[in-house]
Amino acid sequence: MTFPFPIVTFSQHVSFVNPMAKTFTLQEIATALEGRLMGDGALRITRLAHPSDIQNSEDLALAMDAKLLPLLKDGKAKAAVIALRDEKDSAFVGARIIVERPRLALARLTALFAEPVTLKTGIHPTAVIEDGVSLGKNPAIGAQVYIGAGAIIGDNAVIHPQCYIGENARIGNDALINAGVKIGAGTLVGDRAIIHFNTSIGADGFSFVTPQTGSVEAAKAGNGGAVTASNTALIRIASLAPVILGDDIEIGANSCIDRGTIASTRVGNGTKIDNQVQIGHNVTIGENCMICGRVGIAGSVLIGNRVVVGGASGIADHVTIGDDAIVMVMSGVAGNIAAKMIVGGTPATPREKAMETMFNVGRLKQFFKKIDELADKVKKLEKGE
Amino acid sequence: MTFPFPIVTFSQHVSFVNPMAKTFTLQEIATALEGRLMGDGALRITRLAHPSDIQNSEDLALAMDAKLLPLLKDGKAKAAVIALRDEKDSAFVGARIIVERPRLALARLTALFAEPVTLKTGIHPTAVIEDGVSLGKNPAIGAQVYIGAGAIIGDNAVIHPQCYIGENARIGNDALINAGVKIGAGTLVGDRAIIHFNTSIGADGFSFVTPQTGSVEAAKAGNGGAVTASNTALIRIASLAPVILGDDIEIGANSCIDRGTIASTRVGNGTKIDNQVQIGHNVTIGENCMICGRVGIAGSVLIGNRVVVGGASGIADHVTIGDDAIVMVMSGVAGNIAAKMIVGGTPATPREKAMETMFNVGRLKQFFKKIDELADKVKKLEKGE
Amino acid sequence: MTFPFPIVTFSQHVSFVNPMAKTFTLQEIATALEGRLMGDGALRITRLAHPSDIQNSEDLALAMDAKLLPLLKDGKAKAAVIALRDEKDSAFVGARIIVERPRLALARLTALFAEPVTLKTGIHPTAVIEDGVSLGKNPAIGAQVYIGAGAIIGDNAVIHPQCYIGENARIGNDALINAGVKIGAGTLVGDRAIIHFNTSIGADGFSFVTPQTGSVEAAKAGNGGAVTASNTALIRIASLAPVILGDDIEIGANSCIDRGTIASTRVGNGTKIDNQVQIGHNVTIGENCMICGRVGIAGSVLIGNRVVVGGASGIADHVTIGDDAIVMVMSGVAGNIAAKMIVGGTPATPREKAMETMFNVGRLKQFFKKIDELADKVKKLEKGE
Repeated sequence: MTFPFPIVTFSQHVSFVNPMAKTFTLQEIATALEGRLMGDGALRITRLAHPSDIQNSEDLALAMDAKLLPLLKDGKAKAAVIALRDEKDSAFVGARIIVERPRLALARLTALFAEPVTLKTGIHPTAVIEDGVSLGKNPAIGAQVYIGAGAIIGDNAVIHPQCYIGENARIGNDALINAGVKIGAGTLVGDRAIIHFNTSIGADGFSFVTPQTGSVEAAKAGNGGAVTASNTALIRIASLAPVILGDDIEIGANSCIDRGTIASTRVGNGTKIDNQVQIGHNVTIGENCMICGRVGIAGSVLIGNRVVVGGASGIADHVTIGDDAIVMVMSGVAGNIAAKMIVGGTPATPREKAMETMFNVGRLKQFFKKIDELADKVKKLEKGE
Repeated sequence: MTFPFPIVTFSQHVSFVNPMAKTFTLQEIATALEGRLMGDGALRITRLAHPSDIQNSEDLALAMDAKLLPLLKDGKAKAAVIALRDEKDSAFVGARIIVERPRLALARLTALFAEPVTLKTGIHPTAVIEDGVSLGKNPAIGAQVYIGAGAIIGDNAVIHPQCYIGENARIGNDALINAGVKIGAGTLVGDRAIIHFNTSIGADGFSFVTPQTGSVEAAKAGNGGAVTASNTALIRIASLAPVILGDDIEIGANSCIDRGTIASTRVGNGTKIDNQVQIGHNVTIGENCMICGRVGIAGSVLIGNRVVVGGASGIADHVTIGDDAIVMVMSGVAGNIAAKMIVGGTPATPREKAMETMFNVGRLKQFFKKIDELADKVKKLEKGE
Repeated sequence: MTFPFPIVTFSQHVSFVNPMAKTFTLQEIATALEGRLMGDGALRITRLAHPSDIQNSEDLALAMDAKLLPLLKDGKAKAAVIALRDEKDSAFVGARIIVERPRLALARLTALFAEPVTLKTGIHPTAVIEDGVSLGKNPAIGAQVYIGAGAIIGDNAVIHPQCYIGENARIGNDALINAGVKIGAGTLVGDRAIIHFNTSIGADGFSFVTPQTGSVEAAKAGNGGAVTASNTALIRIASLAPVILGDDIEIGANSCIDRGTIASTRVGNGTKIDNQVQIGHNVTIGENCMICGRVGIAGSVLIGNRVVVGGASGIADHVTIGDDAIVMVMSGVAGNIAAKMIVGGTPATPREKAMETMFNVGRLKQFFKKIDELADKVKKLEKGE
């Protein structure tokens, strides 16, 4: 197969395609960005591009980083977006939009050019809709979707092919559920939620008990190095309470949020969850949190509002994390974290302590040497040398 | 969308719904729990609830933790379950069931009220059943299920929508396969197995070889810091042997168990595996193990019976772990673990050593200070001060 | 259910089944392996088996490891494959093939006996093919597959049940897409690609911005232990650029590769990716890399050619890793890695440093004791004892 784009060059950028060929004038873009326009506002823009990948005069070079400014010198770009902080260093004389907050500009630029995947309004004939399903206005239910009995689908909800919506689940207005998502019975999904491929909401929690004292219980009770009890059987604790997700949440691909035992697992309004995140049973996560990729949150954790959990971190069961706290990447949180704290490492400690520990561990060799030298000196002193 | 439950309050509990309105008398519940009943056994119970979330007189407050007893003082709960160890501290005068082992009581309580998701017996017309499939008694095959040629489905097996059962696979009696599960060709799944959303059983193992000595081989052979060989090509080792899963296993959502190369990857009877667990090719796991969420087990690992592997741990290839061992959370197991050992840390060491190391790392700052002070003192002594 | 194979014995091997009963003569196998044949080349072989699992005279014992040679002594095996390096130590007198590079022989042996899962050529009647899809020669499109408008499917491509191919995506010639894979709109998948169950290619990147300085930005700017800004809202940055995958790639089960913001996320020819790997937006990975299971690669990472990333490692955003580098298992890469470097630990450092640090951390107890003893000696010296 011949690729429309070469993929051989390691550091080469390959910009997005614009299949619908959306176009905007530079003036329209400047207005959307609340940016300052300099030059020809009538220029027609059809594509956003890395400054190293300008293909024609309708490309808008995104050069909102001082390191990218030299790339504009080749003169290929007729228009660029430049950060206010870099304006004085820019020699670019083409049409340009000056923006104060580059990533905010990027959000607005990409929102302009974004192409939602097409899904026709209506119910695809291969979708299976069980009895008693309530559909809102303008539903778009894709091919091979399954919707269980008693489910409620909000207005303008888009449910892509091969999704499963369990019985009595509720999907909010304007929700966007991508292909292959499984949403268990009774789950509530808020308005404008976005859920990506193959994510699983509402599987049963992982919760078992041994008939008598089990190995982990015995290990927690004692400090010995050996197990003093054996798990003769593992008896299942069922998960009765469905997952409740707020409005304006987004959940990445192949993530999981489990049901609760007797109280629901919940995620608050506006919280964003990345790919391959695991959220255990009985967890509560507040509003506007960011949970980055590959994070694991064990059972019964309580996370406040606006908390950020860095990628690949783990949070032990029953931990509480206060509002606005930040858990740094690849941390292991074993105890409670107060509001506004920044923690890192395993077990996670306040940032200065975590950084200091990391730094100190790297200095062990020199300290070990120092100790050996000191020991020699002391030996000499003892000998009266 | 208006939620039937508020989700704004961070620490508030939202108890399960009971759509089928199962009800039991307190006497029936006490009997099921093998608990001691005090008070009105004729009380009708329709819901299990956190003591802070009692809505009416038919709620049973689960207060099997000393910290929850004060919540019963508001008088809302007419009935509660209380742990024997807390009985003397409880001032609760309502009807109550006294239980010896709270989590075991929870298992039995949730089993009473659990609602299996409805799936009609029979074969949904949108299911695709290839030639030569053998179906047991009372199969429930959901919408958009695919069953490959020669597969054998046991009696009373429930296969939810959008599952894929590969050719010649066997699913045991009373197995429950949730939506979106993919089970590869030839896989054996035992009786009463439960597998959750979007889990993949029987993908090919990740196994490649370079035509000549590759970079990793060279690195393993030497101790240098630089790679001395280059991977000119990666040649695939196919996975010939299907996965074999025992009876009474449970596997969470979005987990993976790969095929073996020439011998099967196997999981023994009664073992429970959480969400997002990765089990590599040729692995053997014994009976009644618990493998917690986000664990990765590399190729050819041998795990004995009743082993517990804590969340987010990793186990290197070819490691053997003996019966009843416990791997603590977020550990990295690089070598063999004897039976009944408790290990933690990366690389995993016996618990005391792991705890000691963790503790010692946290004390580095004070020891570094102590060394510097000693050095000063020694310098003074050397100068004869 | 009665298993055709016992699963009770912990260390017992259970060899693969050969449902199609492919057979080869020992001579044919020796030729395929480029091995030296000794003994009866006319022997008919129907199965590859672990030396401990020989069932009849048509089994070929794979004994390409010195530890396995004693297992041949029971005389059950009539034919074996033995490594050249072990030949002098082998007392095996049956027919045998002597091979130079055992894992390469294993690749060739398993390629001979591998059984591709059957999928009839043609389009299954339950597949949904939208308008304007272009199908190559001999397509095999399975049941319940969805192919979006404008997609291009290469010659001889095999797309198993329940896959989703988004609009305008392109799947290369001879590609093998296993059940439940979701491939987003516009994705390019190269020739001979193999993708396993429930993997998600082309979900949106995880990229958000706060209207004003957010908590993480403030934390990065300062070194304090507390958060000095609050995330009042999280505004979405859309992902405009589709994923581009080269030829001859393989991707495991339940993995994810996200779209790019304005430039594509790309994976080069020949690269192999294991299960549950997460590759973030804007990442570029070169050719012939191996990315092992449960690895997380954050946004905008650049990885060169022939790089090996060990299992469960994490790579921080914007990091660059040079050609032929090796990242050891369970590492956390926080900074750039030069070509041919071998790094390990968290934060990852060159191998010697990482090993030294690990070793030193384990010796802390004895050094702390040494410091205390030194302090006692110094005290005595100070007292003039």
